[in-house]
Amino acid sequence: MAHLTEDNSKILKRVRRLKGQLEGVEKMLAEGADCYAVLQNAAACRGAFNSLMRELILDHVEHHLVQSDEATDEIRETAQEIQDIVKSFLK
Amino acid sequence: MAHLTEDNSKILKRVRRLKGQLEGVEKMLAEGADCYAVLQNAAACRGAFNSLMRELILDHVEHHLVQSDEATDEIRETAQEIQDIVKSFLK
Amino acid sequence: MAHLTEDNSKILKRVRRLKGQLEGVEKMLAEGADCYAVLQNAAACRGAFNSLMRELILDHVEHHLVQSDEATDEIRETAQEIQDIVKSFLK
Amino acid sequence: MAHLTEDNSKILKRVRRLKGQLEGVEKMLAEGADCYAVLQNAAACRGAFNSLMRELILDHVEHHLVQSDEATDEIRETAQEIQDIVKSFLK
Repeated sequence: MAHLTEDNSKILKRVRRLKGQLEGVEKMLAEGADCYAVLQNAAACRGAFNSLMRELILDHVEHHLVQSDEATDEIRETAQEIQDIVKSFLK
Repeated sequence: MAHLTEDNSKILKRVRRLKGQLEGVEKMLAEGADCYAVLQNAAACRGAFNSLMRELILDHVEHHLVQSDEATDEIRETAQEIQDIVKSFLK
Repeated sequence: MAHLTEDNSKILKRVRRLKGQLEGVEKMLAEGADCYAVLQNAAACRGAFNSLMRELILDHVEHHLVQSDEATDEIRETAQEIQDIVKSFLK
Repeated sequence: MAHLTEDNSKILKRVRRLKGQLEGVEKMLAEGADCYAVLQNAAACRGAFNSLMRELILDHVEHHLVQSDEATDEIRETAQEIQDIVKSFLK
């Protein structure tokens, strides 16, 4: 329900790309690849994970606070401050 | 390929479990699940991913430094200090 | 200035304790202490800093959303979901 | 003892700058500054904390592994791989 339908395709794309990266790591492990190469490929997923979390949180705040009919100007301002903090933590 | 064969099955299990968790998130998104439920499940994936990274780094240090035939006592000690720091960062 | 006066003393205590910890690290460095001991003490500061950030964000959300006179039940619910996510990220 | 004397001044500078930033946050709290301004200034310390931890870990690995007289080529290679992973995590 809720807001996700609108942004679904963008977020779904992120989840699928991340799953693809993980499948690459899985294949390397199954084939006995060099351990540091595995480590590097796994580390590369970390940015994708952080971006996914950032988008999910920002969307949640956007739809349930910033764009809520029930939000006043002050509520909206605080919501945007929270979004800025999230962006600085998960960039 | 080195040390990974030994620990392969343990790490592979982690990667596959994480992939399964991500598929759960993908399914929730595709079905239009409640957005906070999606967010919580994605956050759980992040914890699993951090654990995976921790194990990959600890194993790498273990096999190439701590258990290396070339390591002296001092090398070994530093390697274990690094493992402790990694544990404190990725817990 | 808003809500900080109430929680000021609690947060101020955290900031001062953290400053004290950092001064400990500074002193160790100046005295040429063992480098791993310095590293461990710096890592402890990082944990204290994450706790400080968590408290600052939770308080901000608490006073400007959860306890705001302008907040409706739905606004409040979202605010508490945000607090739960922040707790899981900065624990 | 150990390697810190050489890099001491660089690391000490980082610690002191970070302490200065924290003192700014302390002053804002004591003067009842706007809570979001406090939050932003505290968040700005996070990058400085991560950089300090990164430098401490990299130096530790550099002096006790990479530049150790006891390190073989293989030990050195692993040590540099660890440094690269640390850089990607704490950037």
